Amino acid sequence: MSQDKAPLRVGLAGLGTVGAAVARILATRRVALSRIAGREIVLAAVSARDRSRDRGVDLKGAQWFDDPVALAAAPGLDLIVELIGGEDGPPRATLETAIKAGKGIVTANKALLAKHGVKLAKAAEKARVPLAFEAAVAGGIPIIKTLREALSGNEITRIQGILNGTCNYILSRMETEKLAFGEVLADAQRLGYAEADPTFDVGGFDTAHKLAILTSLAFGTRIDADAIHVEGIASITPLDLAMADELGFRIKLLGVAVRTPNGVEQRVHPTMVAKGAAIAEVMGVTNAVTIDADAVREITLVGPGAGGEATASAVVADITDIARGRLAPPFGLPVDALAAPMRAPMQRHEGGYYVRLSVYDHPGAVAAIATRFAEQKISLESILQKGRARQPATAFTRNGAENAVPVVLITYATAEGAIRIALDEVTADGHIAEPPQVIRIERE
Amino acid sequence: MSQDKAPLRVGLAGLGTVGAAVARILATRRVALSRIAGREIVLAAVSARDRSRDRGVDLKGAQWFDDPVALAAAPGLDLIVELIGGEDGPPRATLETAIKAGKGIVTANKALLAKHGVKLAKAAEKARVPLAFEAAVAGGIPIIKTLREALSGNEITRIQGILNGTCNYILSRMETEKLAFGEVLADAQRLGYAEADPTFDVGGFDTAHKLAILTSLAFGTRIDADAIHVEGIASITPLDLAMADELGFRIKLLGVAVRTPNGVEQRVHPTMVAKGAAIAEVMGVTNAVTIDADAVREITLVGPGAGGEATASAVVADITDIARGRLAPPFGLPVDALAAPMRAPMQRHEGGYYVRLSVYDHPGAVAAIATRFAEQKISLESILQKGRARQPATAFTRNGAENAVPVVLITYATAEGAIRIALDEVTADGHIAEPPQVIRIERE
Repeated sequence: MSQDKAPLRVGLAGLGTVGAAVARILATRRVALSRIAGREIVLAAVSARDRSRDRGVDLKGAQWFDDPVALAAAPGLDLIVELIGGEDGPPRATLETAIKAGKGIVTANKALLAKHGVKLAKAAEKARVPLAFEAAVAGGIPIIKTLREALSGNEITRIQGILNGTCNYILSRMETEKLAFGEVLADAQRLGYAEADPTFDVGGFDTAHKLAILTSLAFGTRIDADAIHVEGIASITPLDLAMADELGFRIKLLGVAVRTPNGVEQRVHPTMVAKGAAIAEVMGVTNAVTIDADAVREITLVGPGAGGEATASAVVADITDIARGRLAPPFGLPVDALAAPMRAPMQRHEGGYYVRLSVYDHPGAVAAIATRFAEQKISLESILQKGRARQPATAFTRNGAENAVPVVLITYATAEGAIRIALDEVTADGHIAEPPQVIRIERE
Repeated sequence: MSQDKAPLRVGLAGLGTVGAAVARILATRRVALSRIAGREIVLAAVSARDRSRDRGVDLKGAQWFDDPVALAAAPGLDLIVELIGGEDGPPRATLETAIKAGKGIVTANKALLAKHGVKLAKAAEKARVPLAFEAAVAGGIPIIKTLREALSGNEITRIQGILNGTCNYILSRMETEKLAFGEVLADAQRLGYAEADPTFDVGGFDTAHKLAILTSLAFGTRIDADAIHVEGIASITPLDLAMADELGFRIKLLGVAVRTPNGVEQRVHPTMVAKGAAIAEVMGVTNAVTIDADAVREITLVGPGAGGEATASAVVADITDIARGRLAPPFGLPVDALAAPMRAPMQRHEGGYYVRLSVYDHPGAVAAIATRFAEQKISLESILQKGRARQPATAFTRNGAENAVPVVLITYATAEGAIRIALDEVTADGHIAEPPQVIRIERE
């Protein structure tokens, strides 16, 4: 086959786990990639701090730069792949420099995209260079390409994703082994599945960065990461997981973006999802995204959300697309055609709720609570009350709650504001021994 | 936003369920599509037999053709969308005429692609026109785009798919409602989920057409539909589904293409898949495809495999890609770079097997059977023998088998040839009352 086009000369900034895997794939699949792309893809330059480390690939043919920004400015490169990470500083300067120098960019940097994605897309559009970031969300799952290219015939109504493998790993083990959050977290840290400071993952912030990007692609709006309502998973207990199981649900940390009459809701929180739904069946570090849309109804993509090779797979797909000249606007539309974010306030969120209360075992307490809900026009789908004997006492001894029993209320769709008022009143009434546990239900 | 490019003028051949949905989406999303594609997409001409039927869309602006081949030859059109169906005759003439006239083509015609896909791709390549067929496999699931564009960094090792909604619907209901194949089929026919002549679906042939296309994309080989080993689902009984359940499996009709040391195996057959695997959890008419590859490990796409709107979603995605000039070779590589098919003979298939035997309840029968397997060096992972009392007698009264009890053997990976010899011998020995039921196991 003739290769009449000039090779695509790639500069790779960052040779950590993902960067090294990209370099290896470009080397081992050199012939295959040239056939797929219709031209050679050459790793012409790299930038990393440590030149001596063995990365499982011969980098002697690549020019070395200590400074990624110098790499981005260097002549003779067509495309800069940024795999450094971090929302400002060197990675940002690297990308901006590359665009100014007329080079295309590929990045896996979700934090930077969540903060500066629109500016970056605007700069790339102006410079007429490609910008691609499949690897920024859900690792090896082609969710960016799917949203950007495969659903043009659809009005998307909702997107929900398990976007953080650490959280799904923790919740999965809590559920199957009936362990407390802290226990599994410690184990995950020991196994390298969770960071020493786990806040970014278990607090929902990593999921929020990724959701911000998906929301823009799904709804054609400018990225609006600040509008995301974020709750983490630290408050989830084995009792909640057991109750969920009994009620036909699983609990997942989801990033959800949904079109409502009030605008687009973006939220990250532990979520009750019906067992049997594709996303509910995803266990362990695996990621998944479910898209609801008018024509296609529902599609779900499941796969590895992290890992050097899987993330590198997404990076190489972007490189190949660019090599072939198969381009799309980074967020699916020209930047000026992206709509202003339409923030739907969380107080106006409507949905079902799981409310677990630790209720003092006095006559009339449950009736009084049900009355407070009724006053807010909240309809209850079910009430599940467990006798004390059926639960280990230790689960309810916080706040001297030896006399309390768990009562779970499942509501029909209702407004978040109503739930909050009802729970404030129930708390003021003095019937409950602990702050209420509230988990939103996402219906199919 | 400026639309400096000329509109893409589309001719649509076939206004059945899918064609009408395509016409509706092109009309209702005209503005959105022009933003996404960077140019207007105009439905300029249509071809269908019945001009008078209400298709929920105003087609007065489109030129009408009675003959799709005349539509394909008509001046002033850039792209022909073929939604007629059928592997030869008018649809084939339509596509060939369009290519000769320098028009791009989009088709959902899996039968035609399975038979003539390579020739068609060669003609399109020579004429330098695009050929796209996302809708030909798994309806609204973007499996073609994923295989063609998103996995360039991977060596794919296996692809397995639930590609026929009718079969999955029948097996799902047989499992959950413990009904016989014939009962559910009759019900599916009544509900419109199965054709009056169901052979094409339940015999596995529709799955085979789709698998042939996926195999080419996954392994870079020319389509080789004739090499596919095809078995349908008519032999599956409620007892098999119950046994599968007990052993931790579900039974799905899968299309499987796998790279082996002997070449590429392509096979369609009822398959035991481990519960918990993403593909095992897909119930009802939904389709799913799982791809195993070296970098990404495993990804699964789940969604609607049929239906007018969902299939139209895939057609419109192809139209948008073509409008934007976002092109790839139809099968991922230039046709001359596609490798010759490397047929792996089914006799050399290696895998685990579920073997259900209806064994006469005589002392030593099971031992004699186990000996026959041992002679073929087949290792048994488990043997499950059910006492007669625990099964309804009616399940075993065929062939006067009142004295027979079901015995299920699960083998470790072994050669298909060995299983066949062992079962021939067991049958000759006279220990079994019915032909053996053999279902291949697909391991994760």
